Amino acid sequence: MQKGEMIPLDFTRLQLLDKFWAPRQETNRRTTLHIQYKNLRQLGSIAAIDPDYHTDRPGARHIYRDSDIAKWLEAASYTLATSPDSALESQIDEVIELYAKAQGPDGYLNTWFTVMEPHLRFTNLRDRHELYCAGHLMEAAVAHFRATGKRRFLDICCRYADYLDTVFGTGEGRMRGYPGHEEIELALVKLYEATGHKRYLKLASYFIDERGQKPHYFDIEAEKRGEDPRRWRRDYRYNQSHIPVREQTEVTGHAVRAMYLYCGMADVARHTGDRSLAEACRTLWHDLVRKHLFITGGIGQSKENEGFTFPYDLPEETAYCETCAAIGLVFWNHRLLHLFGEGQYADCLERGLYNGTISGMALSGDRFFYTNPLASLGHHHRQEWFTCACCPGNISRLVASVGQFFYSTGDDKIWVHLYAQSRASLPVGDEEVLIEQETDYPWDGTVIMRLSLARPHTFTLALRIPGWCRQHAIKISGTDIGGGETEMSPAVVYRSGYAELTREWHDGDLVELRLAMPVERVRANPAVRQANGKIVLQRGPIVYCLEETDNPYTPLTRIAIPRKAPLSAHFAPDLLGGVSVITGPAEVVVRDEARDEAAAVGSWDGLYTTDLPQTEQVTIKAVPYCVWDNREPGEMLVWLQEGI
Amino acid sequence: MQKGEMIPLDFTRLQLLDKFWAPRQETNRRTTLHIQYKNLRQLGSIAAIDPDYHTDRPGARHIYRDSDIAKWLEAASYTLATSPDSALESQIDEVIELYAKAQGPDGYLNTWFTVMEPHLRFTNLRDRHELYCAGHLMEAAVAHFRATGKRRFLDICCRYADYLDTVFGTGEGRMRGYPGHEEIELALVKLYEATGHKRYLKLASYFIDERGQKPHYFDIEAEKRGEDPRRWRRDYRYNQSHIPVREQTEVTGHAVRAMYLYCGMADVARHTGDRSLAEACRTLWHDLVRKHLFITGGIGQSKENEGFTFPYDLPEETAYCETCAAIGLVFWNHRLLHLFGEGQYADCLERGLYNGTISGMALSGDRFFYTNPLASLGHHHRQEWFTCACCPGNISRLVASVGQFFYSTGDDKIWVHLYAQSRASLPVGDEEVLIEQETDYPWDGTVIMRLSLARPHTFTLALRIPGWCRQHAIKISGTDIGGGETEMSPAVVYRSGYAELTREWHDGDLVELRLAMPVERVRANPAVRQANGKIVLQRGPIVYCLEETDNPYTPLTRIAIPRKAPLSAHFAPDLLGGVSVITGPAEVVVRDEARDEAAAVGSWDGLYTTDLPQTEQVTIKAVPYCVWDNREPGEMLVWLQEGI
Repeated sequence: MQKGEMIPLDFTRLQLLDKFWAPRQETNRRTTLHIQYKNLRQLGSIAAIDPDYHTDRPGARHIYRDSDIAKWLEAASYTLATSPDSALESQIDEVIELYAKAQGPDGYLNTWFTVMEPHLRFTNLRDRHELYCAGHLMEAAVAHFRATGKRRFLDICCRYADYLDTVFGTGEGRMRGYPGHEEIELALVKLYEATGHKRYLKLASYFIDERGQKPHYFDIEAEKRGEDPRRWRRDYRYNQSHIPVREQTEVTGHAVRAMYLYCGMADVARHTGDRSLAEACRTLWHDLVRKHLFITGGIGQSKENEGFTFPYDLPEETAYCETCAAIGLVFWNHRLLHLFGEGQYADCLERGLYNGTISGMALSGDRFFYTNPLASLGHHHRQEWFTCACCPGNISRLVASVGQFFYSTGDDKIWVHLYAQSRASLPVGDEEVLIEQETDYPWDGTVIMRLSLARPHTFTLALRIPGWCRQHAIKISGTDIGGGETEMSPAVVYRSGYAELTREWHDGDLVELRLAMPVERVRANPAVRQANGKIVLQRGPIVYCLEETDNPYTPLTRIAIPRKAPLSAHFAPDLLGGVSVITGPAEVVVRDEARDEAAAVGSWDGLYTTDLPQTEQVTIKAVPYCVWDNREPGEMLVWLQEGI
Repeated sequence: MQKGEMIPLDFTRLQLLDKFWAPRQETNRRTTLHIQYKNLRQLGSIAAIDPDYHTDRPGARHIYRDSDIAKWLEAASYTLATSPDSALESQIDEVIELYAKAQGPDGYLNTWFTVMEPHLRFTNLRDRHELYCAGHLMEAAVAHFRATGKRRFLDICCRYADYLDTVFGTGEGRMRGYPGHEEIELALVKLYEATGHKRYLKLASYFIDERGQKPHYFDIEAEKRGEDPRRWRRDYRYNQSHIPVREQTEVTGHAVRAMYLYCGMADVARHTGDRSLAEACRTLWHDLVRKHLFITGGIGQSKENEGFTFPYDLPEETAYCETCAAIGLVFWNHRLLHLFGEGQYADCLERGLYNGTISGMALSGDRFFYTNPLASLGHHHRQEWFTCACCPGNISRLVASVGQFFYSTGDDKIWVHLYAQSRASLPVGDEEVLIEQETDYPWDGTVIMRLSLARPHTFTLALRIPGWCRQHAIKISGTDIGGGETEMSPAVVYRSGYAELTREWHDGDLVELRLAMPVERVRANPAVRQANGKIVLQRGPIVYCLEETDNPYTPLTRIAIPRKAPLSAHFAPDLLGGVSVITGPAEVVVRDEARDEAAAVGSWDGLYTTDLPQTEQVTIKAVPYCVWDNREPGEMLVWLQEGI
């Protein structure tokens, strides 16, 4: 461990006891994992891992099916790590043995190409998800190894990685290729972290360094297939290979691909100390958060490329915001947080986590959003499964391992990034500190942390002061010690979004953090043409929306929130699993449907009028965006008109 | 002539002397006709009318190319009718002789099928534009006959119609088909009007009556081709054949197809007295104008089907609003006006004519919009030609014959539908009345009409009081005789949107109409979610927009027009061919681009903020929508935020 290095938490060290995450983890374990497994089995995909299994069922084998199975394996492994379950363990072992059988003598492992198109191995890295699937298998293998200590799957995937290491690279006789859908880069780093084998880190670095170099590999590869590369329907911005990664300054293309690439870049930068790669990450991040980030933490404006469009383009109904992309954003910011040690990345992570990622899963755990628009006319609903079923497994592995985001540790520091009722056992130097958080976060901003130590120990407790929080107070065992940057206190140092409390800590010390959590009216940069004149209601990290079931005034765009209207929040324990709702007065333009049908037309009395709008006062009720579409179907709206 | 019947004006009886239409007609004659001919010739399409002409050029022959040539023929003929031009006449005659040569011995005439796919004649009416092309040839033939008195092309097209009359219908051995793209219905009625042959009217009636009957012809036809009709990518709402036309209550599908069908329905209803058909038109019209009509008179919300979506869906940037569809709307309303005699149809016609149709043509006459969105980020520009070049010829024939919309006549009545500086010679009963209009309409609401008669004659002069006009005054030879419905005068009767002045008129009588023309703030029905909180500036019939070149505050959505801001109009003779512009104070949210680039992020200081917006006062300048994109490229916006 380097001095000052921030080490991500092993999530098994954190027990969530809160009302937000703990029930979701339980639902994930009880329901979501089973849904995934059931669907993969019904599709024939589990059986079809076995290369001897004969099936004509369309979709049983598919170029990206290994990734779906791998995400289930990964999520199931995380669950096993905290909740032993012998039935689940058997399912996992059975799948792993099928993969053992599917692996070629050279180490190659892909259930599509091995059986269906063995002659096409590595002939179309641009489109065919071959290395993407490899990466997900590796991530699953590391998760399984860490959860169970069993090396079986890890060894399989190391053999595959070793094989890939003989195929790809700059050496004599190697292919100069890299994936069209990134993922293997970050996975190889995980394999390196789990095994210590530097060759995996080097291979990850190779894939990142080679990307976008000239002559362009995807040109060469296409020509080898007898295709004219210029006739591809996309350009290389789509998969972030238009220029070398260190020259990239704007987020482009398919959002999930971008996030996975950037994760790999941050990983490699962290392990190699490569500053140019770290700076490329920072530049891309600034472009993303200044010009492309939805208020929900969703990313990817357009369905056309499942990705980015142009700066300040943030549509509402047509926002793509794939669940996987928001998850990728969380992953990337987690890595940037550890690379740079700055709370702004945790702010971005938190925005994604509590809004645009977790919205991807129904409260019942059995239905999923592929896309997460910011407005709906009532026809957008979660589904149990998708032809391309990347999102269910992704949200499942995120929820199962969400504890990893709460703390980091160092040789003399503990960082508290997120707050939730929980118990965590944290290594700091050679000591172990138990921190119990007592809080109703994210519904309330008061957090009481009780520290338990075997003996007094001096270290820094770094509490994240969220970017959304404009006023806070800190007490240690009843004594005020800080509250904002104007009120400097020797006991607290504010650095990069954290309040650092450095002292000799004793068993039983209580730290009380109060984060003011008023209802905020958030506005977008005026460059965002879709948001001019509109506001979003946010409280703490939670972004709110209106649903038709609470606000029967469709279209919901008729509603305007006056600038001075008092808005208040209260906790509704029986609503949507227990959430805080926001209520307040609003103005609604009166809609006279009888008149709409009978209007004299051709003059001002039809669809158009010069009359001033008639308005009525109503009380609106906003619910967290992340739980919308869990009741009666209907319209939903995040950006609300601001009234006079 | 039936008592009270309204007869459309033969446009050659009207000479436009105004600053809006006359220069456009001149540009159309000098430039647009030549552009069309040049492009059709360069494409090889003129030469390729000759079946013996061998060409491999893609597009020289095409399934819809006859319609492009026919629209040029039609527009050129209208121009000939008022402006003799022997060179143009020779071009026309040459093309007509090629068509004479192309016609089969049975009368069949289609330059694609005859040469390219003779075995596929009438095997795919659903998709292949065969009867659509036939219709356009017939419209051109009627125009040419009326313009020149020459029967050559009319006879060709009558022979073709006679042949079609032996092929289609309910009789023994006839095909029960009808077109996938309507047009022939209204064309056959024109042929009937020109020749008096009832069989053409009957065939038009047949096509209309048969449409949407079960078993569905397009099912039968697809099965005959060996296709599964259910695998068609569209449903029959697309071409308005989902149910019989008299049962249709909602506008559906491809907007141009819909308009041409509805024109045919109105034509047949008018000539046959079929009330059920007339009522179907009325119902469809109500649906259109109450729920689908853009403020510009554009129609067709979606690119996907080039047509209608769902009620109250009126997008801005993505509004399709094909030029041809707005032209179709004008044609249909002209027919409805004559079918029902109600001014609301003239209101709708005028809205389309002065806004969403004429926007389709550059002031220079050499570039065209295919689509006419209500907002642009600056990338939407007119083009000289299109692969599917339906719009240039359509706008050209509209401009050449625009005079037809200004007046109608009856046995004892003259209707003045539109106003413009002009001279018209109008038959009323057996007399001839010359009306000279002196006015700056549409830029000014004062219209002075001087009547010249050989001898005193009693008839009704029905002046349209536009739906947009909320206050007006009428004087006859200096004497006030009416001004609105509250002030009844025996000299004026208000009926269906017209002020009817019935008296014995004398040579030299002056009628002065003053239509108040303030700047209006128009709002949409609150059911239109895209328009909540927004206004459109309109003055008289002219819809206004902001262009970036006048208002350098992009995105233009940053601009808000305060409800009480005084807005004034003034005529700018040197701008855009001479237009009235609207100016006034507005508020613009300040955009700090330096801050955008440097913002600290992850907190409220990045893309999102809780700060109140900073605004500055500016003066905005709005120009008529119909002339946008005639200067520097840039953003354009019709719907403007309304401020406090």
